[in-house]
Order: sequence, then structure tokens, then C-alpha cells
Amino acid sequence: MRVAVLGVGLIGGSIGLAARDRLGAEVAGYDPSGDTLAAAVELGAIDREADSVADATTGADAVFCAAPVGALPALCLEALDAGAEETVVTDVGSTKQGLVEAVADHPESRRFVGGHPLAGAETAGVEGSRADLFDGARWYLTPTERTEGVLFDRLHRLLADLGARPQAIDPTEHDRTMATVSHLPHVIANVLASRARETLTGGERRPEVGRSFRDTTRVAGANPGMWEDIFSANSGAVADEVDAVVKRLEEAATLLRSGDAERIRGWQEAALEDRRALEQADHAAAELCELRIAVENRPGTVAEIALALGGAGVNIEDMSLFPAPDRRTGAISLWIAGREEAERAGTIVAGLGHSVSVVAGGA
Amino acid sequence: MRVAVLGVGLIGGSIGLAARDRLGAEVAGYDPSGDTLAAAVELGAIDREADSVADATTGADAVFCAAPVGALPALCLEALDAGAEETVVTDVGSTKQGLVEAVADHPESRRFVGGHPLAGAETAGVEGSRADLFDGARWYLTPTERTEGVLFDRLHRLLADLGARPQAIDPTEHDRTMATVSHLPHVIANVLASRARETLTGGERRPEVGRSFRDTTRVAGANPGMWEDIFSANSGAVADEVDAVVKRLEEAATLLRSGDAERIRGWQEAALEDRRALEQADHAAAELCELRIAVENRPGTVAEIALALGGAGVNIEDMSLFPAPDRRTGAISLWIAGREEAERAGTIVAGLGHSVSVVAGGA
Repeated sequence: MRVAVLGVGLIGGSIGLAARDRLGAEVAGYDPSGDTLAAAVELGAIDREADSVADATTGADAVFCAAPVGALPALCLEALDAGAEETVVTDVGSTKQGLVEAVADHPESRRFVGGHPLAGAETAGVEGSRADLFDGARWYLTPTERTEGVLFDRLHRLLADLGARPQAIDPTEHDRTMATVSHLPHVIANVLASRARETLTGGERRPEVGRSFRDTTRVAGANPGMWEDIFSANSGAVADEVDAVVKRLEEAATLLRSGDAERIRGWQEAALEDRRALEQADHAAAELCELRIAVENRPGTVAEIALALGGAGVNIEDMSLFPAPDRRTGAISLWIAGREEAERAGTIVAGLGHSVSVVAGGA
Repeated sequence: MRVAVLGVGLIGGSIGLAARDRLGAEVAGYDPSGDTLAAAVELGAIDREADSVADATTGADAVFCAAPVGALPALCLEALDAGAEETVVTDVGSTKQGLVEAVADHPESRRFVGGHPLAGAETAGVEGSRADLFDGARWYLTPTERTEGVLFDRLHRLLADLGARPQAIDPTEHDRTMATVSHLPHVIANVLASRARETLTGGERRPEVGRSFRDTTRVAGANPGMWEDIFSANSGAVADEVDAVVKRLEEAATLLRSGDAERIRGWQEAALEDRRALEQADHAAAELCELRIAVENRPGTVAEIALALGGAGVNIEDMSLFPAPDRRTGAISLWIAGREEAERAGTIVAGLGHSVSVVAGGA
């Protein structure tokens, strides 16, 4: 297995370390900074310093574009240009819709799958790289109807082998979800830090701040370069989330001013229920079941299945594609944790018009 | 030293443990629940189960009212009724202005000092008590012009001996500060959890949530009974903070929609600066300096000095009062960490019209 990493910061470096350690992969790295590349070799994150995107990409099975969000469209297009027939190109950016649109018209867009690991976003620099950075971490993938199933399958397996839990998601849905669970908390952190500084340091007094305040403002002003890109790339969805929160805050202020203790308690109890619903643990480790799916090997089938399952919250632990010799039909095997979850997945896939069977202990 | 604890939950139990362990105090406990009292004896948090507020308070040097916020006014008044001439009565509630007002007209209000330790707010129950719960924790005190200096001094020293860092603060300022650093983050947590649940669990999909989201919503719906009281007692200040945050969020949404990457970056950088300003560490351990203050022993002097220093962010590490035999004049010694900080404190106290000298290594 040959892997290329374009942009060798914390994420790129950790991909390199994990790919070398766990897959025995040969990793080529490219970065605009020669010092960074030298440090990456020193750390064992890459085998080889490439002197260009094309140099790194040549001969690679998988290419990870790990540059800042604003630089990704041009970099992914360049990697697609340079890659071979079977080279899958992906990225690790925090927003997906704009990038997927930017790549859509490339003649080789079948080889691109957008990606986003939920890991290590706060620090940067190859020095912080760790082979275990992605262990257990969700890694979103945004296949589209143009995505080649075999390449998606290979990437999915590669990420699972790196320790991550890949899940397919629609790019627009991804960005809206990130607006809620990541970008909005960053906006709130900024606003709260700004407000608190105005309130609390008017005089010389240094305030004691409680844990809830520290937690809520922990990411205020995080990495301005990176967040300029993220906020710019996802501005509409984030602004919509801000609007929704403003509406709720206005309701909360009205409720507080009403002094109606009973309703205040009801509001607090509803919030507790909301938090518990959101914290529902993922299914604990359970028996792996194999879902065998017979498919027509038309473009987009794998993406369609992965998106349907991702959208329903089904986690695909592993995946294999078995194209028939005629390349027009084939079989897909998916491994799902838990019999009940596998049956649920089977129903969803059957609903897409495929023939499905569930086999216990398939792995 | 005899201590009474009225309400033996996590805070009351921890006061009892620390007072017995560290001060060799004899601790009487009262709680409406007999089971709780029995558990407190079993845990070593109290020496004696009292059968009423008056029974616990009789003979006590210091009385800690550790009931829920809504029950504190009546409890503190009852403790003042039952206490002796030299019994200082304090509380541990999260809001102060309403309580201080409720106690103000009691003929013995000179013996009351409102209090609020920033520790252990999230769990309840005597079972969680720890002798080290207050180690290094800020413990706000709200003396007023009616507060008897000698009693304030005794309470201040007692809290420092329990391991806490007492600081005097005006009750209104306390509640406004708490609105910003504690109550507002709780409102935001509730609102964000509510919004996220609406957005994310519309279908069957279980979302992956990032760390910033978990941090921001960690306290959503925390202890509904306790927070009903806190929000009700501080509703005006909290609602004002919510209004201020709404205004900033609306500005943020406008900025995001503008798509002006440069201004977005400037906003992020300003937030970073705000957070750093708020995180400025307290002065690290430094040489203790003694501030010797000659005062007229009129009511409110100690409170006036403690509030002025607290308002300027000066931490009083220790304090002693030396009333002159005529009880009309006297000296106060304060210990402050760091020569520079002590000089600053000296200037502030001199500004109040007192004669001050700073002595290095006074402790």
C-alpha cells in the first residue's frame, strides 16, 4: 500500500504514522515547508519527502489532502490530475459542500471522496502527530453519485485500519451538522469571552471563573487562520444556527424575567432530557453481523447504500466489494455490530431495492 | 472551635469533614432528613446529630447554612435568632443579593456574612463529601457596612484554614459576576442542547458530537431543583447577560453572512485575546507581605477594606484584627502574596484614609 500525504501537519503526520505503523504502508509526504517535511521524516511520519504534489501522488493508492480548508479545492484538483486510474483522493477538511462542488466537474471526480476526521482539530504542527490520533474517532466521508464504489470501499477500509470509524454522510448534511455541533459552539465561545471580558475586567479585578465558563469558552479564538477558513466556508449554515440560538435565548430571557419558578424548572428539566437524548451512547461493542447485498454494479450504488445507512445512524464496521467478472453485477458485504442493528440495516438496504441477507458472525 | 452545619449535603458535609480534620473542630449537624444525619456521622462529617436548628446553633462559633438557595433566607434568620453574641452565621448559596437583603433588617445582622464557595456545585449528597473539596477554591464573602469586623475576620480565617481562598465582594457585584461566569453558561448549555436535539435527532441518526459541543452542553439541565432556585433568585442579572449575548450573536451572524474573511479573522483574533485576558493566571505563590493598617474601630471598616481590595483583585491570604483596649481604635494586619501586590494593596487602603505600612515576610 502506498499513501501520499499532502500537507504534513498534525492530521497529515498522524495519518502517516498510523499508515506506516498499522498498515505497513509506504508514505510519501509533500508540504510547502521543507522544514516540516524534514521534521516529518525525523518523526517517522513519512518515508519520503516529495518535491511536488505530483511527485507525492505518483504511484499512490490513496492520497490525503491535509491542507487548510481554503487551500483544499485547488490541492484536491491537482491531486486528481496527478493520480493514476486507481488512485483515490480524499481530504480532511472541516467543511465539505463547497469542496465537493469544486471537484464535481473534474473528469476524474469518480476518484474523489470528501472526508473529515473528528480528531485533533485544536492543535497544529507535525510535532503533535500520533499514530493513535484516530482511534475510535468518527471519520465522515461524503461519497456522491459519481464516486467509484471500489475506491470508496478501499478508502473506507483504510480508515478503519487506521483506527477510525468511517461513516458516509451527504456533504450538505455534514456541514449543517458541523454548524450545530462544532462551529456554533465556537461562535458562542467567542461571544461569551468577549462579553465576559467587557463585564469582568472593567476594573483591575481578575475574576474567578467557574468550570462551566471555562468549558464554554475553551475554544474562543481557536486557531484564527483555520477558523477564518471554516467560518467562511460554512458561513450560511453557521449563521442559521446562530439565528436559531438567538431565538431560544430570547425566549429564555423572557422566561427568566417572568419569575415563574415552575416554568423555569420545567425548562431546566427539558434541557436535561435533551442532553441525555444527545448523549445516548453508541451501541456498545456487539457481535459483528455480515450483511450480504447483491447489487447491479452501476455508478453510485455503494455511495447510495453507505449514505442511507449513515443517515439512519448505522455504523459500518467493515466493508468488502466483490464485483462479478462481467463488472455489471456484484456483491457487497457490510459488517454491522449487533444483530438488531444489522437487521435494521438490512431493512433499509432492501428498501433501496437490493437483495439482502444477514449472516451472524460474518467477520 | 465549635461549628454548626445546617443542611448536610455535599457542601455541608465537606465543611464538616474539613473542620474536624484540619481545625479539630467539634461539628454539630442538622438536616431535615434523619437518614442524611446518620450517614454524616458514619462518614465522620459531623460529631453530633442535632434535632433542630437551635440545637445545632447553640454554643457554635460559626454556623454554615448549606440548604438550597430558596430555603436560605428563613434558615439564616432562624440561625441568627438561635446564635449567641459571638456566633457568626454564613451560608454557601450561589446568589447573594436577595439573601443579604432578607437578613439586613434582623437585629443581629452584624453577625451575618453571606458566602459562596466555588466548589462542588454539580453533585449533591453527603456521600460525595471530601475534606479537600475547598482546597484552593475561591470562597466569596459579602460583608456589608453592618458586619462586625471581628466576626468577619474569624470567618475569613476559618475558611482559609479549611483550604479555601476567601475574597470579599459586594453582593450585587457577586450576582452579576455569577450571572456572567456561571448562570449564563448554564442558559447557553440548555439552549444549545435543545437546538441540537431538534436539528440532529429528527431522523433516526445518532450524531457524533465534538468536544466543543460536549463541553458547552455539559451542564444542560443540571440539577433542576437547584437551578430553579438559582435562576429565580438571579433572574434579572441573568436575563441581562442573555440580552448582551444575543446582541453579540446577532452581530456575529451578520459578520458571517457578509463573507468578509478578513473581518472574520479579526473577530477570531479578538476572541483569542479576550480568552487570554480572562485566563491570566492569579499571581503565583510569592513572598507573603504584611500590611499593617491603623483604623478607627467603627462599624464597617473591615468590610470596606476587604471589599476595596477584593474589588481590585487583591487576594487576602490571611488577616488578623487587633482591637485596642478602648475598642475605639485598632490595627488590622493583612497578608498579601508578593511585594508588588502588597504595595498596590497599601495604596488602595491608604486611599480609604487609613495609615498603612507594608512589612516584608510578615507571616
